[in-house]
Amino acid sequence: MSETLTPVLNDIDRDLDNALERLFAWLRIASISTDPAYAGQCRTAASWLEGTLTALGFETSVEETSLHPVVLAHRPKPGAPHVLFYGHYDVQPVDPIDLWTTKEPFVPRLVEADGTKRIVARGASDDKGQVMTFVEACRAHLAMNGDLPVGVTLLIEGAEENGSQGLPEWVAQNRERLKADVALVCDTGMWDRQTPQITTSLRGLAYFEVKVTCADRDLHSGFFGGAAANPIHVLSKILAALHDEDGRVTLPGFYDGVREPPAELLEQWRGLGLTAEKFLGPIGLKEPAGERGRLPIELIQSRPACDVNGIIGGYTGEGTKTVIASQASAKVSFRLVDDQDPEQIAATFEAFVRARVPADCTVEVICYKGSRAVALPYDMPQLDAAKRALAEEWGREAVAVGTGGSIPIVGDFKRLLGLDTLLIGFGLDDDRIHSPNEKYELASFHKGTRSWARILQALADARG
Amino acid sequence: MSETLTPVLNDIDRDLDNALERLFAWLRIASISTDPAYAGQCRTAASWLEGTLTALGFETSVEETSLHPVVLAHRPKPGAPHVLFYGHYDVQPVDPIDLWTTKEPFVPRLVEADGTKRIVARGASDDKGQVMTFVEACRAHLAMNGDLPVGVTLLIEGAEENGSQGLPEWVAQNRERLKADVALVCDTGMWDRQTPQITTSLRGLAYFEVKVTCADRDLHSGFFGGAAANPIHVLSKILAALHDEDGRVTLPGFYDGVREPPAELLEQWRGLGLTAEKFLGPIGLKEPAGERGRLPIELIQSRPACDVNGIIGGYTGEGTKTVIASQASAKVSFRLVDDQDPEQIAATFEAFVRARVPADCTVEVICYKGSRAVALPYDMPQLDAAKRALAEEWGREAVAVGTGGSIPIVGDFKRLLGLDTLLIGFGLDDDRIHSPNEKYELASFHKGTRSWARILQALADARG
Repeated sequence: MSETLTPVLNDIDRDLDNALERLFAWLRIASISTDPAYAGQCRTAASWLEGTLTALGFETSVEETSLHPVVLAHRPKPGAPHVLFYGHYDVQPVDPIDLWTTKEPFVPRLVEADGTKRIVARGASDDKGQVMTFVEACRAHLAMNGDLPVGVTLLIEGAEENGSQGLPEWVAQNRERLKADVALVCDTGMWDRQTPQITTSLRGLAYFEVKVTCADRDLHSGFFGGAAANPIHVLSKILAALHDEDGRVTLPGFYDGVREPPAELLEQWRGLGLTAEKFLGPIGLKEPAGERGRLPIELIQSRPACDVNGIIGGYTGEGTKTVIASQASAKVSFRLVDDQDPEQIAATFEAFVRARVPADCTVEVICYKGSRAVALPYDMPQLDAAKRALAEEWGREAVAVGTGGSIPIVGDFKRLLGLDTLLIGFGLDDDRIHSPNEKYELASFHKGTRSWARILQALADARG
Repeated sequence: MSETLTPVLNDIDRDLDNALERLFAWLRIASISTDPAYAGQCRTAASWLEGTLTALGFETSVEETSLHPVVLAHRPKPGAPHVLFYGHYDVQPVDPIDLWTTKEPFVPRLVEADGTKRIVARGASDDKGQVMTFVEACRAHLAMNGDLPVGVTLLIEGAEENGSQGLPEWVAQNRERLKADVALVCDTGMWDRQTPQITTSLRGLAYFEVKVTCADRDLHSGFFGGAAANPIHVLSKILAALHDEDGRVTLPGFYDGVREPPAELLEQWRGLGLTAEKFLGPIGLKEPAGERGRLPIELIQSRPACDVNGIIGGYTGEGTKTVIASQASAKVSFRLVDDQDPEQIAATFEAFVRARVPADCTVEVICYKGSRAVALPYDMPQLDAAKRALAEEWGREAVAVGTGGSIPIVGDFKRLLGLDTLLIGFGLDDDRIHSPNEKYELASFHKGTRSWARILQALADARG
């Protein structure tokens, strides 16, 4: 271990209570980005971070976007590598508040449960707690050594839970100020409680809403049933046709650009022992539902998928109502891999839908923002450095895996800045992000901070 | 025209303003049967009618059921035919109240619009206005002749809008007091503004709810999409499979007991000129959606049908959410004709659904109350008498048709009392029953009253 690193890690251990107080101060700000009523609190959360980073010695500014502002902080180090760290200060809404044990999502508490200490608050894990692991690592380096091992830019946005509205445009306009050698994101999770994880690929996304309208009003099914078109029937036929009997998506050309993973990667995945039972058992299921004959990890990492995310139409209250609805709608999304093109899939999907709507009915297909899949080069030097640092902290090799989810900013960094992104986070599957009683384990916060301290050092050493 | 009838009709004309005042008094009582908060008003509406019928010379009582009371009124006439008249004093809820032009659904008003005078209030058409056409006809007969042409029993219930809860049991326990030669119901509509209608058949109903549960919680579609079962997919496949390419219902044995209508009836229906364009045009459609090669009137009268009445699952708000729902549910109903058996269809439907649910998912099939189809004998003498009376009042032949809807009490009268029912009503398609701004045309009320005065006389004459 480097001579400069030991005092940094010791300082992180020693200062944990104070670090927790700093995080709590930030968690008390209700920076909900999707509700305009909280716009002021979003700005307050940005200002709080600006003050914190300025005090640490970063050149910091709060900058306007089309929605909530971003916080931008610089600390250059000529001759050393430069990293761009991304996170977000905004949080999810808190409803239903009655399901929070404390009833106070913005009054953070340290709670002991199941033998672990947990920080309970909205944003504890997603993403304020995770962002602060990086900030505290910087603080300790600066406190002990008066400097950071590498040059650092932080870009902390305030609209991630609102589709990162305005961020790609802002990034595009500020390319020069975001120059770096690699991007770091702390918004993902561990493989399990003991095993760190680096996310090396992300599936892309194409998301649609389909609204079918038949009659121009709701009808009595007694008077019209059997003669009038029913939009729920039309929609069901469309949705049922999206998968064949083998679980494959039936859109023409859907699998264009999808590659089989290399044999050695498949072998590595098999070695993880993630059986269908292990993967689906904890959520009450047994059988993989997608394409037949694939490992669960393949299905969620290297294969595309289609899911109907929501559907509504007609009478949905208690009991019965004999109605034929005028309209029914569904949200349909596709997870994309490799070279699948969201724009081409949008065109194919719309044609697929329109071909299945009767001539006297109408359909609207809304296309939400899509993103391509992203994958890291397996041989990038920063990946090895980060793996080494994580192994030293956790005593276990980091698992390098893809994830089924999409983080559009990663694609934007590649496209707009030419940057590859290391996704390293310390969340756990049971952190209940986006749900009541969100928590972040104290161990995630503490060892996450130590991990970043090591990674910053390792990235500097890798260059040297 | 009978010597005794002319003064009765003249009295109805002369007393119209007073008749309207009496109806308005009843409409002011907010007898909403589905909301327990209005139970007292339901009882008040029953008492109001009890007082009215007692004053007319009926032996009247308010009798308890398991929900709201029924009003029972007798006026026997030895040697003459006896009719059992059924209606209901309860009304639908009024929400959303903002959509009522007057904002006061229980302050009845006489409004002039589109060249017609209309009674606007909740219950104006369904069913207080219709019930009062019969009561006022009795009043005029009694006022002019001191007697009614036939013996009359009125059974006016208070839970029709709540599935007639408690009524079949009450009828079963009071068979002796409900003896009659024929039942009359005034809860249906005219063929059009000028043409009276007698409903001679009703489709039956079998109504179900299907709830599919996959994982034991909502999942992130990024992490699980392609591997975890999606209940909306399962449900869509079930619903899509209910109809084949020709619009026929695919449940095994579904068409058992369905008969083709006699050739002469088909010929009569063709003569009505109800083309797909005429039938579906007013609701914004063009093509019949059900079984191919059938007239629209066949599809809604003599053919069974299946409709999904509602569906819900997953995210249904604005924008996007990448969720795989734990549960999705749909309401599915079947309109039955001839000898189709709702119990057999319930068994077949449940098996059909269960066969399409993956082994590691669960499904609940709720079976709501079903009813068999009902049809009048075409040669019943009271049908001819009523047709003749209606033709005299309206100057047009009454159309004798089936209706696609179900009125369970009609089946109960047949099953429990051995009675056939003549369904004669004066509502119009645009009366907005169950909706804001419910209305009943003054002409419906006035000529409806005159119609019943004639029908009562015709039923007496038919016997003689």
